[in-house]
Amino acid sequence: MGSTFGHLFRITTFGESHGGAVGVVVDGCPPRVALSAEAVQVELDRRRPGTSLLASQRQEADRVRIASGVEGGLTLGSPIALWVENTDAKPGAYDELRHVYRPSHADFTTDARYGIRSASGGGRASARETVGRVAGGAVARAVLASLGAVEIVAWVDEVAGDRASVDPETVSREAVEAHAVRCPDPEAAARFEARILEARKAGDTVGGVVRCVARGVPPGLGDPVFDKLDADLAKAMLSLPAAKGFEVGSGYAGTKLTGLQHNDAFVPDPARGVGTRTNRSGGIQGGLSNGMPIELSVAFKPVATVFHEQDTVDDAGDATTIRPRGRHDPCVLPRAVPIVEAMVALVLADHWLRFRGQIGEAPPIPLRGT
Amino acid sequence: MGSTFGHLFRITTFGESHGGAVGVVVDGCPPRVALSAEAVQVELDRRRPGTSLLASQRQEADRVRIASGVEGGLTLGSPIALWVENTDAKPGAYDELRHVYRPSHADFTTDARYGIRSASGGGRASARETVGRVAGGAVARAVLASLGAVEIVAWVDEVAGDRASVDPETVSREAVEAHAVRCPDPEAAARFEARILEARKAGDTVGGVVRCVARGVPPGLGDPVFDKLDADLAKAMLSLPAAKGFEVGSGYAGTKLTGLQHNDAFVPDPARGVGTRTNRSGGIQGGLSNGMPIELSVAFKPVATVFHEQDTVDDAGDATTIRPRGRHDPCVLPRAVPIVEAMVALVLADHWLRFRGQIGEAPPIPLRGT
Amino acid sequence: MGSTFGHLFRITTFGESHGGAVGVVVDGCPPRVALSAEAVQVELDRRRPGTSLLASQRQEADRVRIASGVEGGLTLGSPIALWVENTDAKPGAYDELRHVYRPSHADFTTDARYGIRSASGGGRASARETVGRVAGGAVARAVLASLGAVEIVAWVDEVAGDRASVDPETVSREAVEAHAVRCPDPEAAARFEARILEARKAGDTVGGVVRCVARGVPPGLGDPVFDKLDADLAKAMLSLPAAKGFEVGSGYAGTKLTGLQHNDAFVPDPARGVGTRTNRSGGIQGGLSNGMPIELSVAFKPVATVFHEQDTVDDAGDATTIRPRGRHDPCVLPRAVPIVEAMVALVLADHWLRFRGQIGEAPPIPLRGT
Amino acid sequence: MGSTFGHLFRITTFGESHGGAVGVVVDGCPPRVALSAEAVQVELDRRRPGTSLLASQRQEADRVRIASGVEGGLTLGSPIALWVENTDAKPGAYDELRHVYRPSHADFTTDARYGIRSASGGGRASARETVGRVAGGAVARAVLASLGAVEIVAWVDEVAGDRASVDPETVSREAVEAHAVRCPDPEAAARFEARILEARKAGDTVGGVVRCVARGVPPGLGDPVFDKLDADLAKAMLSLPAAKGFEVGSGYAGTKLTGLQHNDAFVPDPARGVGTRTNRSGGIQGGLSNGMPIELSVAFKPVATVFHEQDTVDDAGDATTIRPRGRHDPCVLPRAVPIVEAMVALVLADHWLRFRGQIGEAPPIPLRGT
Repeated sequence: MGSTFGHLFRITTFGESHGGAVGVVVDGCPPRVALSAEAVQVELDRRRPGTSLLASQRQEADRVRIASGVEGGLTLGSPIALWVENTDAKPGAYDELRHVYRPSHADFTTDARYGIRSASGGGRASARETVGRVAGGAVARAVLASLGAVEIVAWVDEVAGDRASVDPETVSREAVEAHAVRCPDPEAAARFEARILEARKAGDTVGGVVRCVARGVPPGLGDPVFDKLDADLAKAMLSLPAAKGFEVGSGYAGTKLTGLQHNDAFVPDPARGVGTRTNRSGGIQGGLSNGMPIELSVAFKPVATVFHEQDTVDDAGDATTIRPRGRHDPCVLPRAVPIVEAMVALVLADHWLRFRGQIGEAPPIPLRGT
Repeated sequence: MGSTFGHLFRITTFGESHGGAVGVVVDGCPPRVALSAEAVQVELDRRRPGTSLLASQRQEADRVRIASGVEGGLTLGSPIALWVENTDAKPGAYDELRHVYRPSHADFTTDARYGIRSASGGGRASARETVGRVAGGAVARAVLASLGAVEIVAWVDEVAGDRASVDPETVSREAVEAHAVRCPDPEAAARFEARILEARKAGDTVGGVVRCVARGVPPGLGDPVFDKLDADLAKAMLSLPAAKGFEVGSGYAGTKLTGLQHNDAFVPDPARGVGTRTNRSGGIQGGLSNGMPIELSVAFKPVATVFHEQDTVDDAGDATTIRPRGRHDPCVLPRAVPIVEAMVALVLADHWLRFRGQIGEAPPIPLRGT
Repeated sequence: MGSTFGHLFRITTFGESHGGAVGVVVDGCPPRVALSAEAVQVELDRRRPGTSLLASQRQEADRVRIASGVEGGLTLGSPIALWVENTDAKPGAYDELRHVYRPSHADFTTDARYGIRSASGGGRASARETVGRVAGGAVARAVLASLGAVEIVAWVDEVAGDRASVDPETVSREAVEAHAVRCPDPEAAARFEARILEARKAGDTVGGVVRCVARGVPPGLGDPVFDKLDADLAKAMLSLPAAKGFEVGSGYAGTKLTGLQHNDAFVPDPARGVGTRTNRSGGIQGGLSNGMPIELSVAFKPVATVFHEQDTVDDAGDATTIRPRGRHDPCVLPRAVPIVEAMVALVLADHWLRFRGQIGEAPPIPLRGT
Repeated sequence: MGSTFGHLFRITTFGESHGGAVGVVVDGCPPRVALSAEAVQVELDRRRPGTSLLASQRQEADRVRIASGVEGGLTLGSPIALWVENTDAKPGAYDELRHVYRPSHADFTTDARYGIRSASGGGRASARETVGRVAGGAVARAVLASLGAVEIVAWVDEVAGDRASVDPETVSREAVEAHAVRCPDPEAAARFEARILEARKAGDTVGGVVRCVARGVPPGLGDPVFDKLDADLAKAMLSLPAAKGFEVGSGYAGTKLTGLQHNDAFVPDPARGVGTRTNRSGGIQGGLSNGMPIELSVAFKPVATVFHEQDTVDDAGDATTIRPRGRHDPCVLPRAVPIVEAMVALVLADHWLRFRGQIGEAPPIPLRGT
């Protein structure tokens, strides 16, 4: 039952990369939330490949259908089923891979667990699986919009070791979307694009880091000790294809500081009541949001499909080689941006409802004086 | 309900840092597994502070009691309740902190969520909470021992930016335990100890990185797409106090390689059937174990309690300063080692049982030829 | 998140009575189980109204589509999404009910919880919701067939206080399906049919009791203390529309016996190893199956839609009257038979996998001598 | 993991009948709820045997200890661990039963599932397991008291086929507690007592029916389609030892009425806004509370331990006989009353928090006019 995520606001995704449909059922959504297929489509369009040379040339129309749970533009409080049809499936395209394990793909491990594999393509290990996440995330965004003024902005922060310069306090979605590479630092965006196109030309791929900020999250979200907000964010991110690392706040760099250097001094804050002078905590302390921007990063390895001959084994365990062909992303990062945002929205919506369930609608007395 | 972890093999922890007891209920444990209080005590003793100058001088006897679920040294299949008494509680010791928020602690966020705080100490945000995890992890180890020959070894790999040199293929628990700092590289261990004692002397603290390897894990563990093995490991690690980052396999460093450089070539392997020439995947591909050693790291920030005056606010929102006193760890890393291992054991035991539930006891036909 | 059922074998249903589609996502299904759309269709056809005068004349084609999780007639181990389109929706048909609460329907309580109602028909409170259950139950049947020789047979045992005579040890699906009223006692079936048609003619409705037996269930299924097998069956049954009661084994009648009269003596049994002379336990003891036939019953109240004027209130709280029109079942019981079977199959499949997860594939040593 | 119950307000119970302790961890409790050990003790004392000839003579002091989650008489929002020691254990007392299966007990099925049994007594199948439920239920009561004016009253309504006459609209806890048999109809109470003592004298046992009413429950609790309020109540009740049946509202008797007879007409209600003229729905429509009293019943079979020789088999599968000795209840019903109430409280507290989580603190606009 590993295709379900969330506790009160809960999604269940389905669908392989080819054949049938890919989608999601959102259960536990509050009623009377404004939701349209168009709002979902906007997010799906950001995820869609085939829109630039930076990504796979697979053509996916991906028109979303809302099949339940919404009437007259409002949620009913019942399960919301959303899906898109798989129209660009080429069943025969993967025949040569049926008995050979692509290096650093999930072919071997899928066989090891299930003893059967989707005949065409990567099945649930395909990036196409993320359609359901993004559709569910769009519903989560609608829920968050009904609860407060939360802004979630992700961007490509690093490609192949080259890093952009972006201020998480001010970065906007518009700045991110201004460039196909989804990096709001124009100079870095140009460098990243060049690096990705170079990789494409070489039949190779590159990885990098997506960073994300969530501003406007009220203090107190998270449910220690296991469902700490950062723990659920970490799970959300590591569940993404190709993710190999996660940081919140100062992350690995913070381990190099002393406690005195690292601590975030609390300061009176006219807007928030209480703020911190620095934000090495990344907006989360003790697993609970503290009202400051939530800052996190995800490391994505380079895509495994490279157009070079590589050593591998077949499903008889014999050594062989493979040289993949077809259509693939030289770099997943630009398309990962809306997916990371979707997962953040899902975690926040769930924890906001959980807060309301355990604590109530009005926040408790956070400050004696107020 | 955030104090429950796991799906089939499931723990629920309880207990604040002072007063009463801290413990765990383990539910879903297979029956007829050999389990003794002594085996649990061994792990708790590794977690216990007060054993060297490297850690807090708090004296905790921490004798574990198994109150249910075990008879004649065997598990019954019913819930196993284990706890230790809080004997070294000093209720008055924290009075001065009652209305002042310690920087980078959970004091403020706890108030923000619950509107009430444990009068003495950090409540559930205290490191003492991990007693339940370690006790539950000891049960998980016993379950794993009944299922196969899994070895889980964690160590302090980095302190304040200084890194040890350790081979995850061969590192042993004995080597780790040989030095109080729990680093199996003797030269690094000496440097780490010096650095920690220096911090202690300065009333400051240091952070670092714990690495962990799990060898002997069969291929196929993990439940995509959300309960991927690395996703659940990430959640487990980020739920730990002071954790700010997580990596599996090549992690952030892997984002600097190209796909061709990063891919792990499959090779025939006499022992495993199929192996990989390199292990940048960290033993997990597509969210499923592949039979290679599982390798992960956790970033721990420096402990927030430093014996220096710092700016902060009180619970009326007014600016003030605080200068903590008392007993605290200058560095959590040596004590984090058994805790990281415990969380890995919990994730693996749960996913092993989940594998058996969905797939069956005998692995599916992973290789046509076998 | 109340539209999810099951723990390891888990379904999430979706869909309102009108507009869009109704369906289910089955997650946690074992891989390599034979499954066809035809097998699912057979069960859906049994549930479908419009097939006799005994049921609603609503015409539902209800052709099921399997959109994921199955390839080449075998399950992949990934989520299986199945749905049918709502083709006979008449959106305007319910306009007159928009502001008036039908007595003993869910109109008022739906408003009370969600503050919004599906504009047409009963939304999720409609019997149409059970399409997803039956489709999911068909998958559960396929899983059970891959595990053992379980037979699940339900039948209409009582209508409006008139009771049939049926032997649960021998009753067959063929005998049940021989009559449109789904009672395998031919004389009772004729009486039941006459009673239902009489109610239809009077614009009234009748209730009754469905009984169900599951034969071939191995001993040991169930997970005390809360997920006892009978507890999960009770939940499954009371979640059905119009269900008002549940019995396992001797049920309410058993409360009139003394312990000495009620006890089921154990006897050596060549086939089962251990059997019981009587089966007042209904195949479940201490919440665990004991290898004897599982016997249960469900009480269904008479359908609330009667074609008579009745007192009620509108959604301003003012007194008014209502006289429903349209198409409805004079008696849900014949159509409830496949739905009850589906829920039993879902519970058994889930608990069989849970048994395998906690205990292993081979049953433990139930008898010293074997 | 079958020892956990509830979704947001969640309990995990533990403990066998002999040795160690029995208790519960309550997770997800709202903070700042008044809770004392005394309030819990009151409920445990009602459950305790040995207080009259009507029940087992086992002496259980059962002093509860709250080991976490409460400070200064207020909940902290963290897990609340409560337990009582097993002080009256007589390990050797059950030696003769080690290899013989008591008829209609869980001895055989426990072996069939776990392959191991608690050496002394019924393990988790013992009624002693319900200590954890009652302690958890006392916490649920405290939560409900903080949310509204809910009254939960259960009573013994029927013994061995003899029925009392009780008005669920007015019955009070005081009336129930006035007689040791816990029946508020004094004449019936006298008859029940005589019948139970007669059974005791004959070395036999009797069963019966407990009814329960919950008044003051707001409309809208329940989470269709699977977590309907009556579905979760049914599961709660059938998880109790010796429970064989469950009814809500009109139950089985309601199946004998026509729809026209059965429907509850809505009427304007000064106190509730909307009420119903009759309450055959038992306060629940479409799985959601409607503001009327919730009415349910539970059928308890006669206790299986009768002091007569009975046919059975041993754990080698050979025929033998057994004649139990010791201390046991001739009738569980009086002691079942607080346990039924506890389970109702647990279900209501969980669903109240779930309502608040999905819907918010203020109920939606249930009536246009208000």
